[in-house]
Amino acid sequence: MIRVGIAGATGYTGLELLRICSHHPEVEIIWATSDSYSGIELGNYCPAWQGRTCMVLEKPDMEEMAREVDVVFLGLPHGVSMDYVPAIFPHAKVIDLGADFRIQNLETYEKYYGLHHKLPTVVREAVYGLPEIYRQKIKTAQIIANPGCYPTSIIIPLYPLLKNQIIQPEIIADSKSGVTGAGKKPTEVTHFCEIDGSFKAYKIGEHRHQPEIQEQLSSAYGGSVDIVFTPHLLPIKRGILSTIYVQGDPSVSEKEMWKIIENFYHNEPWVRVYPLGQFPELKWVLGSNFCDIGLKKVDKKHFVIVSAIDNLTKGASGQAVQNMNILFGVDERVGLPSSVLYP
Amino acid sequence: MIRVGIAGATGYTGLELLRICSHHPEVEIIWATSDSYSGIELGNYCPAWQGRTCMVLEKPDMEEMAREVDVVFLGLPHGVSMDYVPAIFPHAKVIDLGADFRIQNLETYEKYYGLHHKLPTVVREAVYGLPEIYRQKIKTAQIIANPGCYPTSIIIPLYPLLKNQIIQPEIIADSKSGVTGAGKKPTEVTHFCEIDGSFKAYKIGEHRHQPEIQEQLSSAYGGSVDIVFTPHLLPIKRGILSTIYVQGDPSVSEKEMWKIIENFYHNEPWVRVYPLGQFPELKWVLGSNFCDIGLKKVDKKHFVIVSAIDNLTKGASGQAVQNMNILFGVDERVGLPSSVLYP
Amino acid sequence: MIRVGIAGATGYTGLELLRICSHHPEVEIIWATSDSYSGIELGNYCPAWQGRTCMVLEKPDMEEMAREVDVVFLGLPHGVSMDYVPAIFPHAKVIDLGADFRIQNLETYEKYYGLHHKLPTVVREAVYGLPEIYRQKIKTAQIIANPGCYPTSIIIPLYPLLKNQIIQPEIIADSKSGVTGAGKKPTEVTHFCEIDGSFKAYKIGEHRHQPEIQEQLSSAYGGSVDIVFTPHLLPIKRGILSTIYVQGDPSVSEKEMWKIIENFYHNEPWVRVYPLGQFPELKWVLGSNFCDIGLKKVDKKHFVIVSAIDNLTKGASGQAVQNMNILFGVDERVGLPSSVLYP
Amino acid sequence: MIRVGIAGATGYTGLELLRICSHHPEVEIIWATSDSYSGIELGNYCPAWQGRTCMVLEKPDMEEMAREVDVVFLGLPHGVSMDYVPAIFPHAKVIDLGADFRIQNLETYEKYYGLHHKLPTVVREAVYGLPEIYRQKIKTAQIIANPGCYPTSIIIPLYPLLKNQIIQPEIIADSKSGVTGAGKKPTEVTHFCEIDGSFKAYKIGEHRHQPEIQEQLSSAYGGSVDIVFTPHLLPIKRGILSTIYVQGDPSVSEKEMWKIIENFYHNEPWVRVYPLGQFPELKWVLGSNFCDIGLKKVDKKHFVIVSAIDNLTKGASGQAVQNMNILFGVDERVGLPSSVLYP
Repeated sequence: MIRVGIAGATGYTGLELLRICSHHPEVEIIWATSDSYSGIELGNYCPAWQGRTCMVLEKPDMEEMAREVDVVFLGLPHGVSMDYVPAIFPHAKVIDLGADFRIQNLETYEKYYGLHHKLPTVVREAVYGLPEIYRQKIKTAQIIANPGCYPTSIIIPLYPLLKNQIIQPEIIADSKSGVTGAGKKPTEVTHFCEIDGSFKAYKIGEHRHQPEIQEQLSSAYGGSVDIVFTPHLLPIKRGILSTIYVQGDPSVSEKEMWKIIENFYHNEPWVRVYPLGQFPELKWVLGSNFCDIGLKKVDKKHFVIVSAIDNLTKGASGQAVQNMNILFGVDERVGLPSSVLYP
Repeated sequence: MIRVGIAGATGYTGLELLRICSHHPEVEIIWATSDSYSGIELGNYCPAWQGRTCMVLEKPDMEEMAREVDVVFLGLPHGVSMDYVPAIFPHAKVIDLGADFRIQNLETYEKYYGLHHKLPTVVREAVYGLPEIYRQKIKTAQIIANPGCYPTSIIIPLYPLLKNQIIQPEIIADSKSGVTGAGKKPTEVTHFCEIDGSFKAYKIGEHRHQPEIQEQLSSAYGGSVDIVFTPHLLPIKRGILSTIYVQGDPSVSEKEMWKIIENFYHNEPWVRVYPLGQFPELKWVLGSNFCDIGLKKVDKKHFVIVSAIDNLTKGASGQAVQNMNILFGVDERVGLPSSVLYP
Repeated sequence: MIRVGIAGATGYTGLELLRICSHHPEVEIIWATSDSYSGIELGNYCPAWQGRTCMVLEKPDMEEMAREVDVVFLGLPHGVSMDYVPAIFPHAKVIDLGADFRIQNLETYEKYYGLHHKLPTVVREAVYGLPEIYRQKIKTAQIIANPGCYPTSIIIPLYPLLKNQIIQPEIIADSKSGVTGAGKKPTEVTHFCEIDGSFKAYKIGEHRHQPEIQEQLSSAYGGSVDIVFTPHLLPIKRGILSTIYVQGDPSVSEKEMWKIIENFYHNEPWVRVYPLGQFPELKWVLGSNFCDIGLKKVDKKHFVIVSAIDNLTKGASGQAVQNMNILFGVDERVGLPSSVLYP
Repeated sequence: MIRVGIAGATGYTGLELLRICSHHPEVEIIWATSDSYSGIELGNYCPAWQGRTCMVLEKPDMEEMAREVDVVFLGLPHGVSMDYVPAIFPHAKVIDLGADFRIQNLETYEKYYGLHHKLPTVVREAVYGLPEIYRQKIKTAQIIANPGCYPTSIIIPLYPLLKNQIIQPEIIADSKSGVTGAGKKPTEVTHFCEIDGSFKAYKIGEHRHQPEIQEQLSSAYGGSVDIVFTPHLLPIKRGILSTIYVQGDPSVSEKEMWKIIENFYHNEPWVRVYPLGQFPELKWVLGSNFCDIGLKKVDKKHFVIVSAIDNLTKGASGQAVQNMNILFGVDERVGLPSSVLYP
């Protein structure tokens, strides 16, 4: 059994970790922390757990608690994770669901997150936790930087195409996310009456996930990739659908482009490449760890790629558990949700 | 032209007052105040107004501002309204959309709202602003206590029945409200992800509107009326639908009961009694000032009454403007929205 | 392994059966039928299944297919189930999710469903599939009439109270259901633009579940129970929340009433009685097989009970699988979803 | 008074025409037709109208009915409009909300709509009803082809930029629409449970509005414009938000690009160009006739433009009434909704 600690268990990614880990046959949840709700039973904080567990949320004390576990999931605001890591490192592996260790270029990190980074050497040793791409490195990592939700939906479909240099390094990604992506803390933006029935773009060309996407895509391509990234806010709770516009040589057929993606992910348990002519919809992935991909050639050179994930599962906590499986030599399919709650 | 001032213009009832008053042919909006957004153009606070007005939100200063207007609408938290009233009284009439002057029994008010009432004499002189019932008194009132949203939906259908003592003074009202009823301030309760796809009852048997309903129903009946009142929170923005259970003598037919309501409201512009066999739905009233009513006899003695209003319009700001029309001798139909935005 | 056949697999209850059975460790799904989609792969009909199964939907032929299984779930329109049963009986047990065998009084059935019943003797031998109440009879049943969704949410909380005759046999049940209750077939009523942002009561006092509720409650009470039942349509996909109004002797305290329910369900794995002061919300049960119950005394004699279920799970397919577990001697907790997809 | 007839009044665009025309001070609605609901009172078909009108829906008989009016709005399926036109022409002007007269290239029309066009000469004389662009021609038109909803949201922001040839003739338009765009007829696609909580792209690169957009943009540019157009379906009722990606010379600043749009629409009553740094959201336009536009330069050459309309108002019936105003010499602002129902 893998002994697991969850720091920041009362946020949406923390609760999703609990949902997944509670059904994982190889996991024992040793503790779950909460700054604001320590001392409270999980079933009182979130009645969905009533009658299913007696677990009490604990005040975080990493010096002590890290000794009891094999791995710590950090579901914390950026800037906070880096304070926890040194105390954990001597005892347990770290899977950070925040942004502190995702971006190798520290200048970029500091510019986008407005913080001085305290652990530059840890950044260098951190492995970017996209299992389909960095599986080998993940196996032996001490710390895994779990990817952002938008980046997961964009990098997975583009990686094989850029790696093969079959598309131009100039990408337009139009992404739409559910509101859980904004976190559990109530704000004017997430008020029901401000979201329901509406829709908007936000942080156009300046979202914090943009440099993360760019770094990863450029690394795949072996050269600088330009990305125009526009996030939007959907009036739904979960899910990210990204519509991605790429250009290829006119001689490249729809079938060839599709084949490159399909071949790359053929044996992956959590990536589904749809047959040509079919496209992902959020309802087919919500609650599951799948990343679904569809593709179409729409004119001489433009291809439209559609990808869909659950932002809390494959876009956060599901991917984190997939990384944990790799870290501890467990089959990647084990313990992860494949069912959606449809309808 | 009626010169109007709106105190608390950036809350949901304040914005609804602006929506209605801006189309009212007899109204000139002289000022609109906001504690938090004073100095800001309305179109910047709420882009729906961009290009339509240059009005700037002002810091409230009633001593001065009351002189410039004929009537002040107070869209303020309870407890705050009573601080504004003395400065307004020498100069203008008051229509209070809050709870401070709705309940005649001060002990009840103080128990339910947890506040000491500073203006007991003003409470006694305040008129409860249900136009269909208190029209005569409203005409000459100095201050009008605009009814609560739930009470409006419950008192209107029950008043004629209790007045005629054709039902027992024992009522069950099961009401369902949209989220705007909880106000614009973001809280954990109103977070999109906590509301969407869910539904709950709340404050069962202890909601602040209960004593208000009871006082009015008892006054109609001429004796104490028991009310069991259960509010619920719908995953929608606007609207209250109340399902009300009453008992009559087995000899009373569905048609007779219906006739009593129908006759009472026959000439009312803003109450629609549906033909027997038809029932209100929220979509037929949202955005309008209508209160729609349907009725059915379901067994020997039980009758089910369904009423529907828009909580921000007939349940708040629309009714406030209807009261203003009465106060200033304007036809009650003028300036009030009759269209719904369907679908 | 229990060999399972699902007739009517492409409706919402059929798809929910597939969701649950596919994770059930003791179940092997032998076949799933569809009149309209036979010959099509499940993953093509419903892409959520892509990459997870190669199952092909089959044309129903009970004579043949019943031989291959231990139990057949019937997810069919009322009137159709009774045509399937005779062919299944020689070979397999039947769990009918429709209404054909729920009501013992055939006259009532024929009046409410507008059909002549072809199998009156089977009705008499059918067991009403509420495990918490009829567990013993279910164990040996040949055919189980799986309860309606509204009845499940109303009978579970009321059964112990009526059995103990601690409440009057006069009940008001105000129920609110998500749209999946109306089935998958598109109609004017279920059009997104007719539902979203709206709310209504429907079939007031004349819903088909009313006689089913009445028969069960009267049986519990040992005498005729009057029920006023008002269903409503919520703008959500899943879930039923029932607000139930009952009357007790003034001497009965809230605690006593609560104790009767709590004691009755104390050891039940799928019924959760909330501590006094807490109430169910749909989000705490959606996707799970739980029935959650809360209770409050609101005046001298009135008690308000709130119950919540997922109409497709505890209200249909989950309860059906719970019944199957009992039929085949499997622990009732096995294979049923306890997690909700929150948020 | 302009005497108006509405053919196809019970669809969503027909009902929106009724909403707008009923408040238009210069309009008298003479008749409204419905194939399926003729003989029924509007208030019975759609209870929102109860108590507001006694109008009865009529069976269409254009030979007779066209004589009674000055203008006929056609809210009919494509292919049907062209059957109505000949009978109307001798008596009244035509504003067609369908697609039959929007595309000048008949081959393209026939390919995309799968129909033989019966009135090619009328197509040539039809004026494309975008008032901001074709105002002069509209004034004297006999028949106006009211633009499609997606095209309206895309052509308005792009027209001045292409006219000035300041952007490259290669456009990516990622559009998101509410469900009313799919019409009132219930289908599997528009079932509440298939839409709520989900999101998808559809008809990628093959939507019928694509050739309409292309024809108009090419005409503006004076040369062929390539458009990649991806429509998406939002889980909301009304509204289209288009995110448009264009490329300009690196020397062109954000301010210059913005100025070109701003100058072009400066005096337009129904187009609002947002200050730099601000962007449209659907909630600021829903229910109104506004088209809102925002712009940002995101890298050396890419600009992102966001436009928002209500698809039933500026995207259909509002624009139709704006065209009617021009046709009959009425100020374009008159009778059109400027308020949104917010929240």
